[in-house]
Amino acid sequence: MNIVVTGGAGFLGQALIRRLVEDGSIALDGQRIAFERIVCFDTTHGALADPRVANVAGTITDIAQVESLIDASVRVVFHLASVVSGGAEQDFDLGMRVNLDGTRHLLEACRHHGARPRLLFSSSIAVFGGDLPAVVTDGTPTMPQSSYGTQKRACELLLQDYARKGFLDGRSVRVPTVVVRPGAPNAAASGFASGIIREPLAGVETVLPVSPDTRMWIASPRAVIEMFLQAVDLPEAAWGWNRSLNLPGLTATMAEELDALRRVAGEAVAARVRHEPDQSIMRLVRTWAGNFDTARALAMGFTADRDFEAIVRAYIEDHPEAVRI
Amino acid sequence: MNIVVTGGAGFLGQALIRRLVEDGSIALDGQRIAFERIVCFDTTHGALADPRVANVAGTITDIAQVESLIDASVRVVFHLASVVSGGAEQDFDLGMRVNLDGTRHLLEACRHHGARPRLLFSSSIAVFGGDLPAVVTDGTPTMPQSSYGTQKRACELLLQDYARKGFLDGRSVRVPTVVVRPGAPNAAASGFASGIIREPLAGVETVLPVSPDTRMWIASPRAVIEMFLQAVDLPEAAWGWNRSLNLPGLTATMAEELDALRRVAGEAVAARVRHEPDQSIMRLVRTWAGNFDTARALAMGFTADRDFEAIVRAYIEDHPEAVRI
Repeated sequence: MNIVVTGGAGFLGQALIRRLVEDGSIALDGQRIAFERIVCFDTTHGALADPRVANVAGTITDIAQVESLIDASVRVVFHLASVVSGGAEQDFDLGMRVNLDGTRHLLEACRHHGARPRLLFSSSIAVFGGDLPAVVTDGTPTMPQSSYGTQKRACELLLQDYARKGFLDGRSVRVPTVVVRPGAPNAAASGFASGIIREPLAGVETVLPVSPDTRMWIASPRAVIEMFLQAVDLPEAAWGWNRSLNLPGLTATMAEELDALRRVAGEAVAARVRHEPDQSIMRLVRTWAGNFDTARALAMGFTADRDFEAIVRAYIEDHPEAVRI
Repeated sequence: MNIVVTGGAGFLGQALIRRLVEDGSIALDGQRIAFERIVCFDTTHGALADPRVANVAGTITDIAQVESLIDASVRVVFHLASVVSGGAEQDFDLGMRVNLDGTRHLLEACRHHGARPRLLFSSSIAVFGGDLPAVVTDGTPTMPQSSYGTQKRACELLLQDYARKGFLDGRSVRVPTVVVRPGAPNAAASGFASGIIREPLAGVETVLPVSPDTRMWIASPRAVIEMFLQAVDLPEAAWGWNRSLNLPGLTATMAEELDALRRVAGEAVAARVRHEPDQSIMRLVRTWAGNFDTARALAMGFTADRDFEAIVRAYIEDHPEAVRI
């Protein structure tokens, strides 16, 4: 049996594929199943070289390419491909083509060419917004205030309907803001939450464009990969009819992030962050949900990071090449 | 200035156009504005003949045709075209093409060829479902349990984002089950709620396929047309950022409908309804919301029908040709 990862060359995709290759198998309904091949689909080839990984370069906006990825041998699809929040806001048409139409191509490919594969859709807490309560619960209505969040929510709805119709076995997880995101900054509007840890650790000065008391809902890359695997592992009955789930995370203000950095790496490193408010980013961030009660996910067995300090230490451990302290 | 009505040949479309033609103008921001032309777009020509009404036959699935409808002269678009609930459930692809892609064509046409027209989208209470509270409020999360409801909710989200981006001035209204729907039965799964009034009044025996205590959220055609016009009339500020609204209605069980029919038309007429439970219809109907608290809409000035008896009397008044009692 085979696995497909869209957006596989991205940093989460690569981390996921690395983990799968290390494991040599994937847990489904609590049973470890060996796989033959992981197809890493992205606009560029993934860096990870392994005989079990097939890199396929293409675009999810091309339905024929997407259809060629899926056949009855594909038992699990991780759908991570996406234009990020800032990108979808700047280029509306690109966001619609990739995030909405691309997902529809994948849903259709699974429906017509697959054997009801298990499809994990990486959604986002950006589906929430508007008049938000202090704590977002499993019962809080989704009210996206960005094109990215709109597209993610529309895809969740479609995935749920494809699951209801029996076309595939879909599961959508709303990923918290992933911190610390390694590598170069991307167009995600939330990028600063990683930047204020990653850049100072690399010896680079950086800017915090929002108020230090800005609260965000955060999960580390390690925790997210673990939760992706668990979302796929869980039997269909554990999901029931509701195929969208708020993932556990932890809530941290930017000041708390910097405190953790200070404790782990020292004052000199934390001093590399300069506070320079950017009104346009603040306006956007203000619409995001900063704290969640994820009772349903916790009951399903998902777990969050312990605390933000552990997230900083894990980043340093996973990315020694990017740390100069 | 011109008005476009998609699905204009349908019964609500024809009732709306008739009303507009009678008025000779449309209220926008409380001001009556005269119009030159109403374009009635549908797969067939509307029956209503008037020099101000231009019938255009086509399909909303053809983006070029949809684009040809919209130019800067179009100030108001009523988007009523839709595959109904039963139809979208039976033919998934048709529902996606018409309800989702068709709406996207219209949104794109307004964005690229229009002068930010006011777009009224006829959505549905079918966006609600799943673990519903006894009374659905403005804060109840949408959880569609049908392809129709899924497509309607996805369109609401897109319309809201198009409005947020300033591409158009969109408003979505979630229409209660429209009772009494005149004419031949259609593929709407809720059709029996009209059938058990319309058919006996026409001297025809008919079947109630659900339990008599099945509760539905109902509005008459007259009330819905009135609310469509008000939704378009209200200034943009009255809507704010939240462009989706639960319309007022009244809650009635099928037994209460039959009681009203009995009071208005007599026992012999009501006796033409035979109770024959259909499990597949009951399963679907059970997922629908039967009672609402529409505080926001009431505060915005929308009003519901007085009671179900008034709905029956209005039907008899509006459709003397279909009544044999």
